[in-house]
Amino acid sequence: MKEIHIGLIGTGYIGRAHAIAYAQTPTVFPLKGKLIRDMVAEVNPQLAAERAQAFGFNRSTGDWRELVADPNIHVVDICSPNYLHKEMALEAIRHGKHVYSEKPLALTAADAREMVDAAKQAGVQTMVGFNYMKNPTASLAKEIISNGEIGEIVHFYGTHNEDYMADPLEPIHWHCFKNTAGLGALGDLAAHIVNMAQYLVSDISTVCGDLQTVVKSRPEQAGSSKMVEVENEDQASALIRFNNGAMGVIETSRIACGRKMGLTWVITGTKGTLSFTQERMAELKLYRHDAPANRQGFQTILVGPEHPDYAWFCGGAGHGIGFNDQKAVEVRDLINGIATNTPIWPDFEEGWKVSRILDAIALSHAEERWVKVSEIR
Amino acid sequence: MKEIHIGLIGTGYIGRAHAIAYAQTPTVFPLKGKLIRDMVAEVNPQLAAERAQAFGFNRSTGDWRELVADPNIHVVDICSPNYLHKEMALEAIRHGKHVYSEKPLALTAADAREMVDAAKQAGVQTMVGFNYMKNPTASLAKEIISNGEIGEIVHFYGTHNEDYMADPLEPIHWHCFKNTAGLGALGDLAAHIVNMAQYLVSDISTVCGDLQTVVKSRPEQAGSSKMVEVENEDQASALIRFNNGAMGVIETSRIACGRKMGLTWVITGTKGTLSFTQERMAELKLYRHDAPANRQGFQTILVGPEHPDYAWFCGGAGHGIGFNDQKAVEVRDLINGIATNTPIWPDFEEGWKVSRILDAIALSHAEERWVKVSEIR
Amino acid sequence: MKEIHIGLIGTGYIGRAHAIAYAQTPTVFPLKGKLIRDMVAEVNPQLAAERAQAFGFNRSTGDWRELVADPNIHVVDICSPNYLHKEMALEAIRHGKHVYSEKPLALTAADAREMVDAAKQAGVQTMVGFNYMKNPTASLAKEIISNGEIGEIVHFYGTHNEDYMADPLEPIHWHCFKNTAGLGALGDLAAHIVNMAQYLVSDISTVCGDLQTVVKSRPEQAGSSKMVEVENEDQASALIRFNNGAMGVIETSRIACGRKMGLTWVITGTKGTLSFTQERMAELKLYRHDAPANRQGFQTILVGPEHPDYAWFCGGAGHGIGFNDQKAVEVRDLINGIATNTPIWPDFEEGWKVSRILDAIALSHAEERWVKVSEIR
Amino acid sequence: MKEIHIGLIGTGYIGRAHAIAYAQTPTVFPLKGKLIRDMVAEVNPQLAAERAQAFGFNRSTGDWRELVADPNIHVVDICSPNYLHKEMALEAIRHGKHVYSEKPLALTAADAREMVDAAKQAGVQTMVGFNYMKNPTASLAKEIISNGEIGEIVHFYGTHNEDYMADPLEPIHWHCFKNTAGLGALGDLAAHIVNMAQYLVSDISTVCGDLQTVVKSRPEQAGSSKMVEVENEDQASALIRFNNGAMGVIETSRIACGRKMGLTWVITGTKGTLSFTQERMAELKLYRHDAPANRQGFQTILVGPEHPDYAWFCGGAGHGIGFNDQKAVEVRDLINGIATNTPIWPDFEEGWKVSRILDAIALSHAEERWVKVSEIR
Repeated sequence: MKEIHIGLIGTGYIGRAHAIAYAQTPTVFPLKGKLIRDMVAEVNPQLAAERAQAFGFNRSTGDWRELVADPNIHVVDICSPNYLHKEMALEAIRHGKHVYSEKPLALTAADAREMVDAAKQAGVQTMVGFNYMKNPTASLAKEIISNGEIGEIVHFYGTHNEDYMADPLEPIHWHCFKNTAGLGALGDLAAHIVNMAQYLVSDISTVCGDLQTVVKSRPEQAGSSKMVEVENEDQASALIRFNNGAMGVIETSRIACGRKMGLTWVITGTKGTLSFTQERMAELKLYRHDAPANRQGFQTILVGPEHPDYAWFCGGAGHGIGFNDQKAVEVRDLINGIATNTPIWPDFEEGWKVSRILDAIALSHAEERWVKVSEIR
Repeated sequence: MKEIHIGLIGTGYIGRAHAIAYAQTPTVFPLKGKLIRDMVAEVNPQLAAERAQAFGFNRSTGDWRELVADPNIHVVDICSPNYLHKEMALEAIRHGKHVYSEKPLALTAADAREMVDAAKQAGVQTMVGFNYMKNPTASLAKEIISNGEIGEIVHFYGTHNEDYMADPLEPIHWHCFKNTAGLGALGDLAAHIVNMAQYLVSDISTVCGDLQTVVKSRPEQAGSSKMVEVENEDQASALIRFNNGAMGVIETSRIACGRKMGLTWVITGTKGTLSFTQERMAELKLYRHDAPANRQGFQTILVGPEHPDYAWFCGGAGHGIGFNDQKAVEVRDLINGIATNTPIWPDFEEGWKVSRILDAIALSHAEERWVKVSEIR
Repeated sequence: MKEIHIGLIGTGYIGRAHAIAYAQTPTVFPLKGKLIRDMVAEVNPQLAAERAQAFGFNRSTGDWRELVADPNIHVVDICSPNYLHKEMALEAIRHGKHVYSEKPLALTAADAREMVDAAKQAGVQTMVGFNYMKNPTASLAKEIISNGEIGEIVHFYGTHNEDYMADPLEPIHWHCFKNTAGLGALGDLAAHIVNMAQYLVSDISTVCGDLQTVVKSRPEQAGSSKMVEVENEDQASALIRFNNGAMGVIETSRIACGRKMGLTWVITGTKGTLSFTQERMAELKLYRHDAPANRQGFQTILVGPEHPDYAWFCGGAGHGIGFNDQKAVEVRDLINGIATNTPIWPDFEEGWKVSRILDAIALSHAEERWVKVSEIR
Repeated sequence: MKEIHIGLIGTGYIGRAHAIAYAQTPTVFPLKGKLIRDMVAEVNPQLAAERAQAFGFNRSTGDWRELVADPNIHVVDICSPNYLHKEMALEAIRHGKHVYSEKPLALTAADAREMVDAAKQAGVQTMVGFNYMKNPTASLAKEIISNGEIGEIVHFYGTHNEDYMADPLEPIHWHCFKNTAGLGALGDLAAHIVNMAQYLVSDISTVCGDLQTVVKSRPEQAGSSKMVEVENEDQASALIRFNNGAMGVIETSRIACGRKMGLTWVITGTKGTLSFTQERMAELKLYRHDAPANRQGFQTILVGPEHPDYAWFCGGAGHGIGFNDQKAVEVRDLINGIATNTPIWPDFEEGWKVSRILDAIALSHAEERWVKVSEIR
């Protein structure tokens, strides 16, 4: 079986999640390639070495350029801050590596497009870490929709709300600046719910958005009295229209008190409704309007071995799956796609499609008008 | 104690709810006036007589004009289809009656304004049946917000979704025509959530709306193959901005499969969040962000005798309150306001304010632009 | 239509609920007799007069013996403390009155039996206020079970838990003494869940109970340092076996922190499960095991006009019903039963059956053994 | 760092869960020993080899006796059917291996005692796979209780209900026979909830149980008309008393329609209540009775990085943890305990304590009386 050597750049919160996925995936799934945890890159050699050992990787480096240039690396996995994604990906592509990048793919749709084009030209495979669509519960929703069990979709309401910046005294960080993060809650969080909307409904064609920076400045550091300006939005809402004619709303916030993983959606069809929140990631609520009038009601389906991918993790419904499990599905798709040279999804193209919707929402707000997604390139 | 004679026009679903409220309110609350169930008007004398007897009213008539002209009637209660509200109210006002009208107050904001002005000129009292704000749970929410327990409000998301027209073969009826209903889901349902938004947050200043008629035509009657055009929207969404700076979204639908009383809202503040659905009308969810980080979480408060108005109904929390109980609070406010000649709320002015927001949403959709509510008169 | 004159004894929390039911029932339901709110009895004439006026009754008295002897009264409604039920009911029966008593019927099964026998001999009708079984949601559960939708019942778990005595400094009151209350949580609360078990499953044949007084003494009054002994149980649990072969557990507590109306039950059958809590009295959860394995899950049914009795209150599901509404169903059954001289349910016989199960649980605990309900008379 | 070589016997559903835990644990946690996935034993060499490869183990064997005798193996992990636990464990202990066994430890408490004694004599470490107590949410509950946040515990209600045998036509299997499974639902499922009760409350002192075999015989195979007798209980209930004076109930069922992972408990204290269901394994409900009367209510705490062990898995609350993650905590405790030669918990002693409570419940049922746990040895 072909070996696939992974080079991981960045070992913060999300890099760690990737590492756990690399550790467990070969035991969970029968992979089509042999996953090798090869090299870790961090900001200095010491940290890189420490993390390589903790994460079960063979080698380490304090210079990511060394990693992307290493002839033994097949896949470059980018878990660095957003503003570095583009440079790292382009460099990796230049060396002919497959690239697996965290979301958002880039700070702007234009940057994302450049990355898509480079990958296509180089003939390398790509993947973006929109892991929530790899949740077996999301796959079950997709199956129910595809079966026509809720009829034609007429409405989508989705959010990605969290409260990590809810406290006005939470210090400023790179997520709050245009040159390091690009958009605010839209880029950091809404990317996921836009991806879900496109996955479960259809492509979004037009948007009309509203953005707001509620906390205008934040302490430079915890306890500091020096305040620094916040440059991007804390919350945003957008009316959306889909290619299939459905309408709806997407909202996002990083100051939504009480939402710890508020990726939620309600999809209404002509014959039923599905509803979901990632905070209860193993539950899907299904309503069928064609049930007898006196036996109608939302049903809570616990994801289990009868549903997509779940049986690889657990023997029974209700045992529960976690965040890292959906990352394992993602890594499985990555490895199998590369090993068999078949398309991986979601790829950079999907990352770009998400980015241009986010850009369209921001443009719509700036110009106070409806914007066609096709206006953005 | 002063007698207050009620004349009830219309005895359908909502007229019946008013009748139950008239029956129980004097026992539930110590009223400041003596409520007399005096006269019922219906489309013919037989039906009127039957309903008067069933509802415990003394007299009946097949002609509403007789009721509004009757010198013994003090309050005219309008529970007829929407398109009759204006004519009946103006005629009642002309006879110097106080008027209690179901929502929406009129088919357009302009009509509503005419009613407000007539009532002011005549010096009569008015009330609109936005009963959901009379729910003790809503009053509790208002109290929590006023206390500053969730800080400054930064976001509102509200819906009034139902599924009574979800089946495409549900026959056409007066709610679907412009000349009998005016707007569709917006007028029939969203009036309530707009009223709640204004009650709990502040006045709405600008809107940007999207409307859609999903089921373009419906059978003339059940089983009929003759299809009749639907003239107003099945669903609508709107971005909103409030005077206090908060932003948010309002949505409404009459085809939202599974929603039986989908009046829901989430109000996010700088220090906490409140969340509510009328389908669980006795529960309020409260999140406090200033709780210790390891003891944060939404708390479900069951409305009880420690909260506004509830103790008049039941001795203990968890006993539960129903739709008709909130109508009893409404009738108490009506009777007490008239008996003591003090302002009643929500009055026709509030009904007009709601109507113009609905009109602004519809205009915004027609012209594909943000609309200031003040553009509508 | 025959007039049925009500004489109400006791106007505390539950007497008030009866009064509200008398007020609204004739408007809610088309009754078969004309309900007359005739006389109120209280501990002194002033209070009686005040309450008669507040509750819309014609007459009042400071002496309940006057009420039960009054020739114009047809129904004596007993809402006094438990220890007075027996004396008042026997006296009312002696005067040939129909009797409507709150639960528990008496302090012991033996007393209850005496009341049953007296009523039978006198040929009067009786009713016990087990109002939770009048909730349309409970009627829906009964219908689902009777239809065989969940198969044969194999297990019942039920509670009636509240927290009104949870604070150890809550002062002593009559519920805590043997001579005024008889049993503690069992008599005050568990009576309801035992009644529900018998209603929804079948008669209980044997029990094995455990009782505990957690707070052994309480302040004589709020703030007092004088402590008075608590004479009956704060909490109790019992294994039960039903005549139909099913097994299960009943639990009760008056110190169950957080339970405001913790009347809950789960009924498991060979083909499905029903689950309910009175704190969400308009919701029934139904699980069907014969659904396809990948579409199984508990369904939340909102009680609505398609279900028993509900349509008389509201036009749509989700509008919600409250505690007083189930009392209205109870009063309807009372009035119709008397007006047409047909059996009323639950009658004193059912009250006695509940009492002897409670006595059997207490005996079982005292003797540390399983007890057949038939051992109690 | 010391190497700890694992020998895994059995690769069915639960052996697979162990394998996944072995794969991810070294990346999740900084372990104190080097975990080596060394050898897999299965019923034949081919299957063993296949699974060793799939699970990332170095070696394999078709004879478990070879594994337990192998000098390089330090820990024997027993994931075989229940009736083999004792023989395998004793043999492993005889070879001086540490033993990690799935629950129930043995078919009877007497067998379990023999295993405890053997391990003590041999001086080897032991662990039983009561993984649900390793859930960070359970650890949070323990912390809240230990802090006294809910006061003194007065009541425990716990279940472990599933529905894997609910269908009467589900074929017979080894769980249904005395000589292969011992007890039925009690042994297979209730072991977990008994362990939780002891962990969160205190040791159980006396029990009174009721057992029932609802489905008396089952098809020999799917579709077969030959019926085979079921030899142990489908469901059981028991009254329990704890050493600390608290009372309560434990129930279990393998035919509880709709329960997929119905490990649930409610713990009531003098100052508050905790409630949990494993089907929502990342949520803990907490009620504080000392909150102001108008702000009381159950709070839903989403387990997160502020709580025990969670931060090793995910960076934020609400991301979610799964069944395999609690197995990873278990494996961490195993490896660290062995590496540092410090006590591991839960050990065989705890497994024996659970077994004798289960035996006491069965004895209580057989003899229809309360049984002291100390009667069982």
